[in-house]
Order: sequence, then structure tokens, then C-alpha cells
Amino acid sequence: MAAFSCKAVKFSLPFSPHHPVSSGLQIRSTFIGRGLNVQPLRARRRCRYLCSQTRGFFHLHKTKCSKQSRLQKHLSKMAGQPKTSSTGQPVRAHETRTSNTKSRQIESFAALPPGSVSPAKRQIKEVKETKATINCVTFPLPGEGPEQQLLKPDEWSYCDYFWADKKDPQGATSLPGFEVLLQKQLKGKQMQKEMSEFIHERTKIEEEYAKNLSKLSLSPLAAQEEGTLGEAWTQLKKSLHDEAEVHLKFANKLHTEVEKPLLTFRGDHFKKDLKKYDHHMADLRKQLASRFASVEKARKALADRQKDLEVKTQQLEVKLSNKTEEDIKKARRKSTQAGDDLMRCVDLYNQTQSKWFEEMVTASMELEKLEVERIEWIQQHLRQYTTLRHETDMFNQSTVEPVDQLLQNVDPSKDRELWVKENKTGEVRPVDMDI
Amino acid sequence: MAAFSCKAVKFSLPFSPHHPVSSGLQIRSTFIGRGLNVQPLRARRRCRYLCSQTRGFFHLHKTKCSKQSRLQKHLSKMAGQPKTSSTGQPVRAHETRTSNTKSRQIESFAALPPGSVSPAKRQIKEVKETKATINCVTFPLPGEGPEQQLLKPDEWSYCDYFWADKKDPQGATSLPGFEVLLQKQLKGKQMQKEMSEFIHERTKIEEEYAKNLSKLSLSPLAAQEEGTLGEAWTQLKKSLHDEAEVHLKFANKLHTEVEKPLLTFRGDHFKKDLKKYDHHMADLRKQLASRFASVEKARKALADRQKDLEVKTQQLEVKLSNKTEEDIKKARRKSTQAGDDLMRCVDLYNQTQSKWFEEMVTASMELEKLEVERIEWIQQHLRQYTTLRHETDMFNQSTVEPVDQLLQNVDPSKDRELWVKENKTGEVRPVDMDI
Repeated sequence: MAAFSCKAVKFSLPFSPHHPVSSGLQIRSTFIGRGLNVQPLRARRRCRYLCSQTRGFFHLHKTKCSKQSRLQKHLSKMAGQPKTSSTGQPVRAHETRTSNTKSRQIESFAALPPGSVSPAKRQIKEVKETKATINCVTFPLPGEGPEQQLLKPDEWSYCDYFWADKKDPQGATSLPGFEVLLQKQLKGKQMQKEMSEFIHERTKIEEEYAKNLSKLSLSPLAAQEEGTLGEAWTQLKKSLHDEAEVHLKFANKLHTEVEKPLLTFRGDHFKKDLKKYDHHMADLRKQLASRFASVEKARKALADRQKDLEVKTQQLEVKLSNKTEEDIKKARRKSTQAGDDLMRCVDLYNQTQSKWFEEMVTASMELEKLEVERIEWIQQHLRQYTTLRHETDMFNQSTVEPVDQLLQNVDPSKDRELWVKENKTGEVRPVDMDI
Repeated sequence: MAAFSCKAVKFSLPFSPHHPVSSGLQIRSTFIGRGLNVQPLRARRRCRYLCSQTRGFFHLHKTKCSKQSRLQKHLSKMAGQPKTSSTGQPVRAHETRTSNTKSRQIESFAALPPGSVSPAKRQIKEVKETKATINCVTFPLPGEGPEQQLLKPDEWSYCDYFWADKKDPQGATSLPGFEVLLQKQLKGKQMQKEMSEFIHERTKIEEEYAKNLSKLSLSPLAAQEEGTLGEAWTQLKKSLHDEAEVHLKFANKLHTEVEKPLLTFRGDHFKKDLKKYDHHMADLRKQLASRFASVEKARKALADRQKDLEVKTQQLEVKLSNKTEEDIKKARRKSTQAGDDLMRCVDLYNQTQSKWFEEMVTASMELEKLEVERIEWIQQHLRQYTTLRHETDMFNQSTVEPVDQLLQNVDPSKDRELWVKENKTGEVRPVDMDI
């Protein structure tokens, strides 16, 4: 069985096993985002998925595979080999005749135990397409392979739903699932900024209102009213100023406790950190693409070598040329080498894909956490908004109390007394004139 | 005793007697103000004040009195008569020699019983100033006459404190006490108008506030927020519109329940009615002035007649002229007639003053009532203002409730589920590539 040289990654994910474990592996994520508060993940994860391959199957790029299989079938026919695999399913045959080479067999290299049947005796079989590589990522085809269980069932976790790339409805381009998650976070940042702006607008409205009330409270209208009624009226006017103070205080608190935090939550470095995440994941995909290209190249090289070998063998049999056994051995060696190269390329590809897989899980979990935090943080601060609203209405109510009090004290008799004392002209009543 | 031909007036005033009642009189106020809600007054009032004159005293206009008394003293000296009255106080003497005339005696006409001492035997006495006529209204001098009790003690009633005219500090003009009361009512009308204006300004501020809140509630800011958080945010925005409605309602109620009533309370006819009151009282004062002028004229005429008689009498005694007894009788008759004229003028003057007095009491009581009503009415409507304020704050509080509710329901897991369902790219996880 192949041993993978993966770096250790520590996860805290309680992954549920969906494949039998064949080896214990530790894999470490290479990326710890500074601004993102990524917690070091400290749990062993069994590299289960890597053992998901069904024994005995080869895999080729989808389109080439169909072509190849027809070609192989033809070649097999020509070679006179049957085309069924040990499991009864068509496989792609590869005849290798290096009996004492230690090179790995191309077919089912992960599954063949040492000392298996000599390639010469293997039959050429047809290969059924069970996997497809889309945008350089390899997936099982629908209905093929063991059923995949969700990594985090019932949680609608990001790490379960964003494996494929999203097709752009208009064009040929597509967006990696990770990008979709990242854009959600960027949008979240935009949302908090817009919410902050909204709150800012509210504070402006409150300040305007306060300013108007304050100005009106200074009005001299009916200032000449005297006595207890005059006092009540004066207090009524003053209460507008008190109300203004309440609303100004509301505006200030809105600003410091809601608006500003909403604006500065996560700061500018957040976007940069997200970008780093973005680039990191994009790099991994690029690497994967590069590896995939190598695989394709090696596959083609192998096909060329095999064809060359076949042609030469046929030529030998029909004595069409004077190629020596030596030439055929050379061709066979080159073919085997090409087979080895392909295996190595596929191996590297799978390593890279594995790496990308792990980073995807880590990163999407991180983004998921960030989103939970974002929602909760916003919830908390919007609650602060409603708290301030409640407070404000209560304080506002209290500004009316003294007015009520003084209105209760309004006393026409008292006012008359005050006014008469101030304005009387004379108490002595007239009397009859004498002669 | 003189019998006054006064019209009956019905008062509801519980006047306390300040003078012994000498005769029961009923006096009716001629003015019932239509717009002023003057209640018909239905109580008998004893014409007490009219009997306030101290027996045995004459009265003259203050300045003339002093002049006259000096003249009289001089004349008395010349006539060789002592100058003391029966009460021991100096009186102004008037020698009338009409023994069988039925004309009233000038002195103490209200007090002398029929069949009193013949004028010839009366002594010429000095008159002490006990009253003063100021702006045609006659008052007792300080310390003179019986002590006056307030008509409405402990009430600081208008009817007790506005008898004299108010001196204008700058000029020679003066304002009747009634005018002061009237101006208070007119000022009250101005006050309610200014209060109405103030409330109007408040409604404008509320409408502006409501308009701003409503506009902001339609903002698309952060509209892209989804899920439970998005719902809470949407409700938060909507709550601004609810607040706007509350403040708009406040503004409308302020307008209909406080501003408008304050503006229309008592209406335009009020001022006109006050003006009528004003003119009525002014007319009475003019009448009084006119009567007073007549008194002065009659007094002068009497003085002239008396002087003429005296001169003629002296001339007879010193046989300076060949005036016959007939001439002296004629002079004496004229003198007596002048005395009768004076008495009639004084009588009419006192009637007019009495009339003015009654109207003053009625009118000032009416104004007092109007002022009480005004204060209570304003108090009531300002209380409506505070009630609306309380209401508004409470309604405003309730606009926050649904926001609180939805914020409580914010659920990051649910939001993730919704979003993932909507945006997932693929659940199938990648697998190793086969060769």
C-alpha cells in the first residue's frame, strides 16, 4: 500500500467515519491565519477519505478515458486478451512484461499485494468510468463508489457543501466553492459597514431633532405669563430642552456603542487576512492543476510508449521490419518507465489534492466560525440599539414629570393675588360728593 | 333725606356691610355683555355706600375747596359770623336768608330733618377737607370718614383694588383701574395665541423628525442580510417607520387637541366684547366727568350769587347805594336758586357715580371670572399636552418590541442552513485519482 508523505494536520473536527480506516495519519494545516483567530486544531484525523478507492480500478481523465478505453479495447482485441477484470467489470488493460522489475504495477497499485499475478497473465479489461476530474479536482461519479456520509451531519456545515466549483451561468468561468464562502464573509463585512452607516444616519436625525427642540425651548413666546400658570408654562418650555438632552445623549451613545463598533469590528486587517486565505487556497488549486497537467502529460507519454511497443511487437510478429528483440526490450522498458512516471504523477496529484482537501476543511470551518461570530456580534450590538431606544423613551417620559407637577399646582386664586398685589391701583372706594 | 332715583341692580355679591344702612335700594346694572357670559345677577344689595356721608359736612372740589373756604372765611369774617359747625369742625358757611322758601339747605342736605334752624341763624363755619375728587371721582381723604372694609376680604378680588386711576409715570395721563383689568384680559388672549404658536412649532419639529425617520426606514442599507439576522435587521429598519407614525400622530393630536383650541379659545368676538365693556365703562366715566363739570359750574354760579347778595346787603347797611329791599330780595332769591341748582347737580353727579360704581363692581367681577376661566382652561389644555407626551413615549417604546423579539430569534445555525441550502456548490467530496 502506498504511504503518503503528508504533513501532520491537527483538527478538532469530530468527523464521523465514512470509510474504513486503513492507516492512521496525522496531517497539519500549513496555514494559520493571523487575523482570523484560527485556533490551533488539535485532534487526530484519520485520513479516511484517502482510502476510498475501490480496489482494482484505474482512473483516467474522463474524456480521455472513454477514448482510451475504446483504444484499449481495440488493442486488447488485437492482443487477443479478454477484457474483464477480476471483479467482472471492464478494466483498462496494461500489459507490462517487466517480470523482475520492482516497478509498481499501474493497475490497482494500492490494492495489489506483493507477488501478484505476472502482468503477462493479466487480462486486458475495459475500464468503466467511476470518477470524473472537473477543473482538476477528482470526484466520484454519481452512484459510483461507496456512499459518502457528511463530515458534520445535521449541521449544514460549510465543510460539507462547497466541494465543487460553482458554474457561472453566463460564461465558461467557474468559482471555487471556497470563493463562495469567502465572498460571503466579505459581504458580511460590507453588511456591518452598511448597518453602521444606517445607525449614523439615525444619530444625525436625533441630533437634528435635539437641536430643534433646544432652540424652541428658548422661545420667548408667552414668557409674560405670570404666577403659577407662568411657572408651569416656563417648565413646559424647559422640558423641551430636557428632551433635547435625552435625544442628544441617545445619539452619542448610538455612535459610541453601536455605530462605531459596527464600523470597526474586525478592522481593515480582516479583509487582508481573508485575501491571504483566498490566495492560499487559490495557490493550492493552481498546484493541483499543475499536478493534473503532469498526469495528463504522463498519461499521454505512456500511451505513446505503449503504442510504440505494440507496433514494434506486431511488426516483429509479422516480420515487417528487422527490428531486433533489443528494440522491443527498449520499447518495453520505455513503456514501463512511462508507466512509473504516470504513477508518480498520479501519486503527487493525489497528495496535492489531499492537501487541498485538508485546507478546504480547515478554511471552510474557519469561515463558518467567523460567520457565527459575526452574526452573534451584530445581534449583540443591535440589542444594544434597542436597549438604548428603551432607555431613551424612559428618560423622555421623565422630562414631563416636572411639567405635570407644576400644572397640578396651577392656582387661579394665587395668581390673582400675586397679580393684584403687583398691579392694583387703589383700594379706597368712591363716596358721594358733598355740597 | 334725599331719595335717589336709581334703577334697580341685582348683585350676587355677598357684600359685607361697611356702612349702616339708611335705606334699602335696589340698583340694576344696565350692561349685560353678550359674549362675556355675564350671568344675570339676582340679589338685593343695600345701597350702603350711598349713605356713607358723614352728617353735616359739605364737600367741594379739593383745590377750589381750599380756595373757597378761605374766601368763605373771609366773607364770614366780614359778615361777623363765627365759623364753627355744630360738630365743632369748621364748615363752609352759607348764609341763606330765604326763610319761607322750601328750597333745600345746601349744607348737610341728606342729614337735616325738616324744620331745622333758619338759615339766618346758622353760623358760618369753616369746611374741613375730608374728600377729594380726582379725575372726577370722589374719594374720602386718608383717615377721613368711616373705615372701609373690603367687599370680598381675603380674595384679592378685582372689585376691591382698582378704584383709583393708575398714574402714567411718564406723562400726565392716567389709566382707569378698569383699563388695567381689561388690558390683563387682552394680554391673556395674546398669551394663549403665543402658546398656540409654540405648540405649532413643536408640531413642525415632530413632523420633520417623523419625515426623516420614515425616509431612513426605506433605506436599502444592509438589505442583503439574510436569514434570522436579516429579518431582525429588516424589522429594525421598519421600526423607524413605526416611530415616525407615532410622532406624526403626536403632531396631529397636538394640533387638534392643544394648538388649535388655544388659538380659537374665545375667538375673535372676545376682543370685541371686551371692547364693548371698555367703551361702556369709558362712557360712564365721561358722563361722570360731565356731571362733575356741571357741579363745578353750579358751584361757581352759587358763589357769584352769594357774593352779589353779600355785596348788596353790605351796600344797604352802609347806605352806599339806593338799592331797595326789592333788589336784595331778588339777589337772595337768585342765591337760593343757585343753591338749589348746585344741590341738583351734586345729586345727579352722585347718581352717576353710583351707577359707575355698580358697573365697576359687575365688570371687574366678570373680568375676574374670565381670568379664572382662562387660567383653568389653559391648565387643562397644557395637561393634554403632557398626556400626549406620555402617550407618545409609550407608543414609541412599543415600536422596539418586535425588534427585540426578532433579535432574540437570531440563530446563526439556522441562518447557515438557509444560506448553505441556497448557495452550496456540491456535497460530493473529492477522491483520489486512479491510474
